[in-house]
Amino acid sequence: MFKRVLVANRGEIAVRIIRALREMKIESVAVYSTADRDSLHVKLADIAVCIGGPQPTDSYLNIQNIVSAAVLSGAEAVHPGFGFLSENTDFARVCAECGLVLIGPKAENVELMGNKSNARKAMQDHGIPVVPGSQQAIEDSHEALQVAKQIGYPVMLKAAAGGGGKGIREIANEKQLLEKFDQAQQETKLSFDDQDMYLEKIITDPKHVEVQVIRDKFGNVVAFPERDCSLQRNHQKMVEESPCPVIDESERHYLMSLAAKAADAIDYLNTGTFEFLMDKDHNFYFMEMNTRLQVEHPITEMVTGFDIVKLQLIVAAGEKLPISQKDVKVNGTSIECRINAEDPTMNFMPQAGLIKSIHFPVGCLGARVDSGVDSGSVISPFYDSMIAKLIAHGKNRHEALSIMDRMLDEFTIDGIKTNAQYHKALLHTPTVLQGMANTEFIEKKFAPVWQQLVKEEETK
Amino acid sequence: MFKRVLVANRGEIAVRIIRALREMKIESVAVYSTADRDSLHVKLADIAVCIGGPQPTDSYLNIQNIVSAAVLSGAEAVHPGFGFLSENTDFARVCAECGLVLIGPKAENVELMGNKSNARKAMQDHGIPVVPGSQQAIEDSHEALQVAKQIGYPVMLKAAAGGGGKGIREIANEKQLLEKFDQAQQETKLSFDDQDMYLEKIITDPKHVEVQVIRDKFGNVVAFPERDCSLQRNHQKMVEESPCPVIDESERHYLMSLAAKAADAIDYLNTGTFEFLMDKDHNFYFMEMNTRLQVEHPITEMVTGFDIVKLQLIVAAGEKLPISQKDVKVNGTSIECRINAEDPTMNFMPQAGLIKSIHFPVGCLGARVDSGVDSGSVISPFYDSMIAKLIAHGKNRHEALSIMDRMLDEFTIDGIKTNAQYHKALLHTPTVLQGMANTEFIEKKFAPVWQQLVKEEETK
Repeated sequence: MFKRVLVANRGEIAVRIIRALREMKIESVAVYSTADRDSLHVKLADIAVCIGGPQPTDSYLNIQNIVSAAVLSGAEAVHPGFGFLSENTDFARVCAECGLVLIGPKAENVELMGNKSNARKAMQDHGIPVVPGSQQAIEDSHEALQVAKQIGYPVMLKAAAGGGGKGIREIANEKQLLEKFDQAQQETKLSFDDQDMYLEKIITDPKHVEVQVIRDKFGNVVAFPERDCSLQRNHQKMVEESPCPVIDESERHYLMSLAAKAADAIDYLNTGTFEFLMDKDHNFYFMEMNTRLQVEHPITEMVTGFDIVKLQLIVAAGEKLPISQKDVKVNGTSIECRINAEDPTMNFMPQAGLIKSIHFPVGCLGARVDSGVDSGSVISPFYDSMIAKLIAHGKNRHEALSIMDRMLDEFTIDGIKTNAQYHKALLHTPTVLQGMANTEFIEKKFAPVWQQLVKEEETK
Repeated sequence: MFKRVLVANRGEIAVRIIRALREMKIESVAVYSTADRDSLHVKLADIAVCIGGPQPTDSYLNIQNIVSAAVLSGAEAVHPGFGFLSENTDFARVCAECGLVLIGPKAENVELMGNKSNARKAMQDHGIPVVPGSQQAIEDSHEALQVAKQIGYPVMLKAAAGGGGKGIREIANEKQLLEKFDQAQQETKLSFDDQDMYLEKIITDPKHVEVQVIRDKFGNVVAFPERDCSLQRNHQKMVEESPCPVIDESERHYLMSLAAKAADAIDYLNTGTFEFLMDKDHNFYFMEMNTRLQVEHPITEMVTGFDIVKLQLIVAAGEKLPISQKDVKVNGTSIECRINAEDPTMNFMPQAGLIKSIHFPVGCLGARVDSGVDSGSVISPFYDSMIAKLIAHGKNRHEALSIMDRMLDEFTIDGIKTNAQYHKALLHTPTVLQGMANTEFIEKKFAPVWQQLVKEEETK
């Protein structure tokens, strides 16, 4: 096993990884920007190295500085977390050149699956059902019009290299396609330094269902029970749960075997997640793969009892996966709410400043909080607004929801506004209580309900 | 189910119970002394009632004020937690007279098992093995000498009504018995308003092993896997784990069936714990029963997945126990460290004052913190020094220990000294790592090691 590992990230996920390293008696090296000098991940690591200024391009996206920090600090491996460089093939190559193990998939896995268009093709070739869409990268609006005509409207326009909601547009007809193509492509260039787009048929009112896998270099693979991540706002997941409340045992096995088969087909290494859309008739369509650890991995940990970050480290160190598919059972239900530093009553305006105090609503069976901040932490305006995750695990969905409800009630931060009460209102809607929410639910159904609640609160 | 429940306690356990009530959508009524006006349990409850001054006799032991608060606030039931009035039969009777359900055993259960001498007799009558000792209450030193002669020295002198280490003395010979009896009896009178003593043979280097049960009014009973609570200082538990690392499956079943049989024999209601001593040959001797929820209940929750406070509420409401013995499985190992506000480098002097900030080492699979304090809380000098419990759960003992090690490292309180580093040193001793500690270990083996560590630290 590694003796020292550098964590090329910040905030909640850096803290999460540093804790796992500590539990495995591996020394941790944190990297930080000048804006993050006093942040929690810096305090918890064994060693901390400043890698540049507050702008991500100067620090957390600065490959040269991060790799130098790793080499100079004597780290043998690098964990990229999620976001930043976690799906960057250049970073993977530079790490390899410098003799650093990148804790994640091989560069060719990231390259293949990172390009959504190539990923679709690879999946199709191996018999995995995909959403009908463009067969290759689209370079301009003219080409887009032709492809959209074949697929049939409505279609989704996406950045081939995309993720995190960037460069994505819903297109109802030709007119909209012409209007929105250039702007989306421009956003794609800025976000990913790449201009390839692709088009996908829109599956009406689908559920977003995903299966995480982990695979070692010997070809042993384990697929975990599916997660339902349908509750999204602006294409960003807000609430995730595992298992999906409307999927039965045989569908679960089908999905898990599909994901394991796909991982084998592309000779995948380490952990990654196959995302599917499920239509009303429970047909599944591969959408994309995230070739990294995901924000929502804790709910899988809670229902299976396996620490996924520890498994990642074992596999990255070249060891055999210590579990097999038959060890994977679904125990109850787990739900995660992403706590963002934003004001849901003011159009989700990001919040920055000092957290005077924070209260963690743990202290009962099944309540977990993964947080990147603490009392006295400063929320910087430079980074993602997700600061903590509330995770509830119950014997069944009803109990998990009641634990989450308690946690959302109890969670308080003094100094910074968060979306906790938005989550609470969301989880109280009949659709969510019944487990029936699809990916359109928040934007189309819940948004007006929330606006009404905000108005009522204002007039009080 | 109840609509509103009063929690007749403070600190960590009051917070724990209030959270369970919230998760069950039951309104909570906190009671507090004037010293606890701003404490966490008051903040988290739906309703809070001041019941008197800082001295426990004026507030948390003031039966009249607590019962009045319950009646006036419209509570239907009272949860006494542990300590204070949790094993007080007068309190049980006054609650019954006022139409309040006391969430715990029947008054006659408490009465029978609360008197250690009667408890021993009852267990003997039902074929439960007991430590050889006095057959009835001892009233003076003359009687004590006679009984001790029959049993054989060394013997343990205990308060019949005792608990919490009060009125307890180790006696090596006649001379010591004469020297110590009156003082111990005096302490017993002060602590329990009762002067009955009893004597027990000392089992050399035993492990303290205990089995918690829960039983409903229909006679359904479930026994939980044993806990090893051998790590004690001044007869106060410091670290507990479940299961006991040196007990095998057949011994576990024997112990659990013994406890279930004993609970049936005395027609026990709600939860309680049978404490046994285990000698070197793995003979088990019933020692005493705690007729209440115990401090260490979370480790049982972690290995079984059942929320014991919620089960208590279900049983107290007259409902059927929702689980049966076959549902009880041991999943991995869980360990708890009791965090006390005390200075282990200054003879464990209790600490009081403001907690400027507190950092919770949660945020990984298997890490739980049950705490009665938060950033900004004030530790009062009037009450028990136990302020939080760190609880680790791993797939096996090795993992649980490594998670606890990380938690102890990471746990920090600014403003108050705690025993966290004492725990860390304790858990690193070979005896504890091997799971071989007995009840003498801390006093006889670890105390000098700790003194040495403190000296080395001082000379640095």
